[in-house]
Amino acid sequence: MKKLPIVLILAGGVGKRFSPMMQSKDLFSFFGTPLLEWNLHHLELAGFTQVVIVCTKEDKERMSHFVFSKLQISMVVQGAPKGMADAVSCAASMIGNNPVIIMNAEDVVEPHFYSQLLIEAGIDHAWVVGKQVNSYFDGGYLKIEGDRVIEIVEKPGIGHEPSDRINLVFHYFPDLSVFTSLFPSVKTQHDDVYEIALSIYMKNHDVSLVSYQGEWSPLKYPWHVLDVNAMLLSQLSRKNGKNVTLKTNVVIEGNVHIEDNVTIYENTKIIGPCFIGEGTIIGNNNIIRGSHIGRRCVTGFNTDITRSYIGDDCWFHSNYIGDSVLESDISMGSGTVLANLRLDEEDIASVVQKEKISTQRNKCGALIASHVRIGVNVSIMPGVKIGSHTSIGAGLTIGEDIESESFCVGKNPLYTVKKNIRKVDVSGREKFRMKI
Amino acid sequence: MKKLPIVLILAGGVGKRFSPMMQSKDLFSFFGTPLLEWNLHHLELAGFTQVVIVCTKEDKERMSHFVFSKLQISMVVQGAPKGMADAVSCAASMIGNNPVIIMNAEDVVEPHFYSQLLIEAGIDHAWVVGKQVNSYFDGGYLKIEGDRVIEIVEKPGIGHEPSDRINLVFHYFPDLSVFTSLFPSVKTQHDDVYEIALSIYMKNHDVSLVSYQGEWSPLKYPWHVLDVNAMLLSQLSRKNGKNVTLKTNVVIEGNVHIEDNVTIYENTKIIGPCFIGEGTIIGNNNIIRGSHIGRRCVTGFNTDITRSYIGDDCWFHSNYIGDSVLESDISMGSGTVLANLRLDEEDIASVVQKEKISTQRNKCGALIASHVRIGVNVSIMPGVKIGSHTSIGAGLTIGEDIESESFCVGKNPLYTVKKNIRKVDVSGREKFRMKI
Amino acid sequence: MKKLPIVLILAGGVGKRFSPMMQSKDLFSFFGTPLLEWNLHHLELAGFTQVVIVCTKEDKERMSHFVFSKLQISMVVQGAPKGMADAVSCAASMIGNNPVIIMNAEDVVEPHFYSQLLIEAGIDHAWVVGKQVNSYFDGGYLKIEGDRVIEIVEKPGIGHEPSDRINLVFHYFPDLSVFTSLFPSVKTQHDDVYEIALSIYMKNHDVSLVSYQGEWSPLKYPWHVLDVNAMLLSQLSRKNGKNVTLKTNVVIEGNVHIEDNVTIYENTKIIGPCFIGEGTIIGNNNIIRGSHIGRRCVTGFNTDITRSYIGDDCWFHSNYIGDSVLESDISMGSGTVLANLRLDEEDIASVVQKEKISTQRNKCGALIASHVRIGVNVSIMPGVKIGSHTSIGAGLTIGEDIESESFCVGKNPLYTVKKNIRKVDVSGREKFRMKI
Repeated sequence: MKKLPIVLILAGGVGKRFSPMMQSKDLFSFFGTPLLEWNLHHLELAGFTQVVIVCTKEDKERMSHFVFSKLQISMVVQGAPKGMADAVSCAASMIGNNPVIIMNAEDVVEPHFYSQLLIEAGIDHAWVVGKQVNSYFDGGYLKIEGDRVIEIVEKPGIGHEPSDRINLVFHYFPDLSVFTSLFPSVKTQHDDVYEIALSIYMKNHDVSLVSYQGEWSPLKYPWHVLDVNAMLLSQLSRKNGKNVTLKTNVVIEGNVHIEDNVTIYENTKIIGPCFIGEGTIIGNNNIIRGSHIGRRCVTGFNTDITRSYIGDDCWFHSNYIGDSVLESDISMGSGTVLANLRLDEEDIASVVQKEKISTQRNKCGALIASHVRIGVNVSIMPGVKIGSHTSIGAGLTIGEDIESESFCVGKNPLYTVKKNIRKVDVSGREKFRMKI
Repeated sequence: MKKLPIVLILAGGVGKRFSPMMQSKDLFSFFGTPLLEWNLHHLELAGFTQVVIVCTKEDKERMSHFVFSKLQISMVVQGAPKGMADAVSCAASMIGNNPVIIMNAEDVVEPHFYSQLLIEAGIDHAWVVGKQVNSYFDGGYLKIEGDRVIEIVEKPGIGHEPSDRINLVFHYFPDLSVFTSLFPSVKTQHDDVYEIALSIYMKNHDVSLVSYQGEWSPLKYPWHVLDVNAMLLSQLSRKNGKNVTLKTNVVIEGNVHIEDNVTIYENTKIIGPCFIGEGTIIGNNNIIRGSHIGRRCVTGFNTDITRSYIGDDCWFHSNYIGDSVLESDISMGSGTVLANLRLDEEDIASVVQKEKISTQRNKCGALIASHVRIGVNVSIMPGVKIGSHTSIGAGLTIGEDIESESFCVGKNPLYTVKKNIRKVDVSGREKFRMKI
Repeated sequence: MKKLPIVLILAGGVGKRFSPMMQSKDLFSFFGTPLLEWNLHHLELAGFTQVVIVCTKEDKERMSHFVFSKLQISMVVQGAPKGMADAVSCAASMIGNNPVIIMNAEDVVEPHFYSQLLIEAGIDHAWVVGKQVNSYFDGGYLKIEGDRVIEIVEKPGIGHEPSDRINLVFHYFPDLSVFTSLFPSVKTQHDDVYEIALSIYMKNHDVSLVSYQGEWSPLKYPWHVLDVNAMLLSQLSRKNGKNVTLKTNVVIEGNVHIEDNVTIYENTKIIGPCFIGEGTIIGNNNIIRGSHIGRRCVTGFNTDITRSYIGDDCWFHSNYIGDSVLESDISMGSGTVLANLRLDEEDIASVVQKEKISTQRNKCGALIASHVRIGVNVSIMPGVKIGSHTSIGAGLTIGEDIESESFCVGKNPLYTVKKNIRKVDVSGREKFRMKI
């Protein structure tokens, strides 16, 4: 019997593109569990027994509570974020010449795929995973010849794709040391030592293709939380926790997962898939659709939460929250709206590291980090990012990203006070009353 | 047996006062049917068999699909809008010396009145229709002597009314050619050849009075759509179309006419008279009162539509729409309100062709043409008119008419961004939670 | 048997600190009854028979309709507001050497306490009422020695309190003339003749302590209406008046007192303690919690009223009204919000007679006098006071107090109108519809 491969998980990236979220992307919490823990859980269920995680010093601390009965986890700190090849090198001595599957911490695939990976890892030559795509993807494509993958072509441009398969980072090597021995000889100005070494490896070794037909969601930009959220919600089973109170005329449709000590007030409808965290209060006359709501939240009266991710300890009141990400400890005053569709109905753009890029989403609301307070009747434009510990004054329309620890205050007053010449004719009011 | 009169329908006016609506006033659609087609339907039901319509070239095209089994319709294009006498002249050769009833395309009366007209048309002298009024009407009054109407007095001024009867344009002549032969001799600087000729005719021929006691709504200004709408809704019978879905706790009161494939979501109340067009979705927790809602609309969550006309393909979300006219293909973001009452509770004015006139309505919302997009949390002031293909940015207060193909964008930003000195004390939040 | 004491009620203060309310604080109406009448009612129930009220000329007029079968009420006008000693002097000749209990008109205590006062008044030496406090109170403290109260210490400062008992103005004298005879000899620059005389009296006479453990709410500032309101509501019993209509799916929890001719529409929840005045209409999909709503109000669709005082003839529509005082005849447009919590969650301050003071409330909404009209989508900041007969234009954010008879109008327009380059692609809309 072949040796079980070690799973080498790359979690050392800094994730600047994930700004303004406070959590690192691999530890971003879904259903109260960091994303990486969620992935580890599925690796364990599939039968893997040994994992090496390359991570930052801070994340190592944060992952110290991870406990898995059948999974032995080792952590290696990557001193500085110097790319995939460096990350793999950090773990090289620990893994030696054992078989290995290299994967990213923050990619989400369908759970059953891990079982498939374990089976595929039984062979004695390398493989990579290719996912079929129908439209252009701005990443690496596989060049395939017969049974062999012979090259990875980064961002070939529309019309120049070498195949319809894109490269997912689930790379299997029967002996990691053979692969890493190629790194020192790679000459490049860019952050692509790993990719070049892999192409060299493919020239000299058989690398076969493992096909993946399922869903795949990488977590790179903050709006990717929406995709991961939708994918994880679709895997969730129905649950009704202990001490859950549903008041009269509450309608629950589809898969709704309700944790303990949740109360849902009158005339509220919840349309699955939805997750409602422990101790959360869903107010009267709400509608909640396709969303994740964390622990100890209060949605207040008359709130509409649609296809959104809401973390812990958030407070709402008569809000519309559509296609938005709210990390945790965020409150919004009555009448505040997170707009999620442009008036011209075009895809929504966002400025990331000073560059304007498309979210490739037609509907995208606000992306808000933790500890934010927003006043009443505020309008936040689609795709706006708001940093942590920021406050936004009442009645404002926010059309650009706001940095963390900011206070947005209206230029006041935007009105003039004149003498009122109106004569109140109280008796005359009766005529209006009649029309109701 | 007398010959059945031909009905001569005047539909050639340009209708500048009906701006900003895209449809011409006589083809403005109610319940999916142009207003004129609606009138033709009632003429056919009453037993009329021959109609001549004087119309514009564009409207002739639009009316080409009119199909009536018992009504023979001829169309005459009026080259330029040169008044009623010119319109009647255009059709003169087609009608010859036949008896005729001349009427406007866009006036709405109670359906049974058409049967009365057919009976009255059996006599061999002319008649005109007088409607009794209780307060001053800024139009033509009938001067009556014994059994005869002897003159039409235009806008006599308050206190100078020659009778309490106003002139509705339902004018019967046993031989049209006798009337039109008077046109060439009329000398006038104004657009009143028809009216002067009619007064001359009255001097030389018996013209009797046909009384009308019922409701009458002419469609001249865009806010008149509200009056015609109310009148037509009041005539509508209850209907429940095929494949209509009512979710739990939907309350329907009074005459509500629901077309096929309509879904009405939970906790919504509809108070008749109301019309809901085919394929429309009425969202959760709505209230809809005394309104016309066209085909393929989506009212979204928590919308209040009151005494309004909504055309096809409109989309709402947590809006208040009161006493408003929305032609078609209009969307409004969450929290947007069409205000319908002035703070001083006075009648609402509107600027039409550069002149400010009273709508004579105490409650009047916005008057919005087709293909308009409105952002979230917008406030539109009473009586404001918005042209077609216009977009309105989020959070704005619109107090004046906006032309077609405009983009209203807020002067940004109306806030300053400071350093936030607030210290978040997460533990302290527990005290607020307790108060709920 | 001892003579029953006369109750001397001091109601002559001008109450500038109660601005902007139009009613004087002692005649502010709860459940349709002026506060003083409410107190008189409890005095009568306890068994008192004679009351002397020192009041302003205007209030005497307003109190002329007071009718009590067992309580004889005399009124004395205090010419100008010159303090407590002057007020008591105005009534001195009328009371002579009878026993008396001196109290304020606008202090609210628990009703059973009046019975206790009557019993305590049976003794032949003076007493004052001390209420135990747990935290510092910025008023008068009692200095106690054995069984005797020996001094009243005004605002001693934190850590310098002479006891944990504060002075409530319920002061009993077996012979008023003995106390008032001390007034002429008091030398002071301040408005404290009464207090100094009382301390002198304590040196020469036995003054004992009457303990009060219950709730006490004085009405001094407008936000105190909230405290008095909460206290009076908690004493209210459940009632269902005549001709009360509850539509389907109305939920009533706790003590809710509903007067005659009230209608409550569908999907509304009322959580007691609440008072709903005669003829009021509570609209669809409302939530009303811990509030007083006066007569002939209309709350409209989708309104949330929480811990607030609403007087008569108020009109709402999709509003949030939290911890607010609305005197009477106030209307608010759709989407208008009275914010009740600062973004920094600190106590809310208010400017009273040009001095900024803390309301000592963490949650406090707006304080609005009668005859105010507020447009749609207005945001009023916590603790803002709005004077009577004022109008506030649509879409404004009001962060400062507004004087009476003002018209706040937005600096218009706050937008620019450009050419719209958006191309409407009606066919493309189908894709958005699918996502609902």
